Amino acid sequence: LTVHDIGELGLLQRIAAYCPPGALLDDAAEMAIPADQTLIVTTDVLVDGVHFSIGQANPACVTTPPWCVGWRATAANLSDLAAMGASPAGVTIALGLPGETPVDWIEGLYAGVKACLDQFGGQISGGDLTRSPVLTVSITALGQASPQRILRRKAAQPGHALVITGPHGLSRAGLELLLSPEQGQDLPAQQRQRLIQAHQQPRPRFDAIATLHALCSDPPLPMAGMDSSDGLANAVLQICRASGVGARVLRSHLPIPDGLAGWLEAEQAMDWMLYGGEDFELVLSLPDFLARALVEALGPGAAIIGYITASPEVLLVDETGQRPTITLDLQQGFQHF
Amino acid sequence: LTVHDIGELGLLQRIAAYCPPGALLDDAAEMAIPADQTLIVTTDVLVDGVHFSIGQANPACVTTPPWCVGWRATAANLSDLAAMGASPAGVTIALGLPGETPVDWIEGLYAGVKACLDQFGGQISGGDLTRSPVLTVSITALGQASPQRILRRKAAQPGHALVITGPHGLSRAGLELLLSPEQGQDLPAQQRQRLIQAHQQPRPRFDAIATLHALCSDPPLPMAGMDSSDGLANAVLQICRASGVGARVLRSHLPIPDGLAGWLEAEQAMDWMLYGGEDFELVLSLPDFLARALVEALGPGAAIIGYITASPEVLLVDETGQRPTITLDLQQGFQHF
Repeated sequence: LTVHDIGELGLLQRIAAYCPPGALLDDAAEMAIPADQTLIVTTDVLVDGVHFSIGQANPACVTTPPWCVGWRATAANLSDLAAMGASPAGVTIALGLPGETPVDWIEGLYAGVKACLDQFGGQISGGDLTRSPVLTVSITALGQASPQRILRRKAAQPGHALVITGPHGLSRAGLELLLSPEQGQDLPAQQRQRLIQAHQQPRPRFDAIATLHALCSDPPLPMAGMDSSDGLANAVLQICRASGVGARVLRSHLPIPDGLAGWLEAEQAMDWMLYGGEDFELVLSLPDFLARALVEALGPGAAIIGYITASPEVLLVDETGQRPTITLDLQQGFQHF
Repeated sequence: LTVHDIGELGLLQRIAAYCPPGALLDDAAEMAIPADQTLIVTTDVLVDGVHFSIGQANPACVTTPPWCVGWRATAANLSDLAAMGASPAGVTIALGLPGETPVDWIEGLYAGVKACLDQFGGQISGGDLTRSPVLTVSITALGQASPQRILRRKAAQPGHALVITGPHGLSRAGLELLLSPEQGQDLPAQQRQRLIQAHQQPRPRFDAIATLHALCSDPPLPMAGMDSSDGLANAVLQICRASGVGARVLRSHLPIPDGLAGWLEAEQAMDWMLYGGEDFELVLSLPDFLARALVEALGPGAAIIGYITASPEVLLVDETGQRPTITLDLQQGFQHF
């Protein structure tokens, strides 16, 4: 059964099952934002053949069944909200669809979106359906934040500690295992599954934001942050660039996660940790005492990976002297074109 | 110069010229919504080859230079806000781009978006850039409305008058003149230009909403509305379906606009008026006295086109008896698939 078979009205009826009552009835959606909160908005486009693959003949489709496309697209947007210190209110979903798109695939997508929202908060508040030669999923997420709690990139200060809320490189490793199942044969099944889940079902770190808020004094201290969706190195570089500072990231503070250590050379693992992307952890620049308290509260995976410096270089430093110091720059990171 | 030549960072620098300072600096955008207002959200996707054409070799590209694509996409979203009784706050723009997209084209698009926002309100508050085999423009518009002033489709009542805020069929006629310039040769140049402008540069009717609010008593009366983006017939049908009512639309109250009367048969003109779409006027169901006051205040083009009935059919009636009564239904309207 395809989109062409049931038409726009038929498709809208099926989509309505994933939305709150009345969500699709009007030209636009209504959303209540509490009076003392600032609206936070973020948007992402995912394209068939670039970010996922619907083609049954394409082996890459196994990496992204429709439920996972929906979950990941939603989680990526919610992660941007978390990175601003916000909580989720709702999403809109705009689809560009070839007529031959299976209805099953679209229902799977909406089920994944709804599952992610049910877990982390928010509803499907509206959207758009249109014809397109390429399946395109465009999600806009709306959230709310207390104005004095909004996290921005530009507030990093020399002496701040750089915190990651969890391990990096897992999503990239999970993708590799999905594309080349013959790899990592020595990994325990549980670890394989954990890596694949890191890729297919990432989790926005609203819990880390809640922990941070619980640890913070009022009025809030200067702090900066973003998520590591485009890679850990990219996040550190963006924060430093926006704040006019640099950083020293210490190799000894970036332990290779178990799932990677078991089958990768150390430099390959470090490459995926720094540049793999899509781990959707938070990278935070915090006063040292707060960084320590947050890392302890979050537990394994969270770490202080280095410090903010007044000089503008972002350096990867081996304190043992075995490896040379490397200057990180944005050109090495993921570029979309 | 293409997107591939300047890369994502280069493109972001150019886009920044159309955005307020700092708009692209963080993971998500901040937007202030006044404490007593409800957030209103709407989203649209436009696809190359479906809604516009970037190909220089394609004659259809004349219908949609990039500035007009930006204006129209923005106006379409703002019109959805107007249809809810809201005022604009901002938009996000997510682009899916082939690497060979000319940078000029994208700058033209943003200039069109910004021109429309400068005229009607709101800013470009954020977005996303990603690679895609097909150029795709996804716009989400955010607005605000007083909770007691929100216009919905479901509140039409038998006895209400059906109001249009302006003429219909002009956009469809303008498209025809762009695609087939040999048509309508007898039309005065000024009328040709008016039809083409109706297609390329539609105007969201925030002015009609402001006039309606100025005429309304407080507490507000029951009223319903939507915009006519998918055609006048579709708007009447959607309002009636949502409200559980029907309507009698009177041919004598639907005068053929001058620009159409000059070169089209009456039935062809009526078809474009009812089904042409993209006129972006408002279709309102209002108490009769309020409808009369609004039409008088708005002036030429605005009209009472019929009345809401308790029986659920939506009929096009010729009171002179020359033409048979026609039952309108949604299947005749524009279907995207």
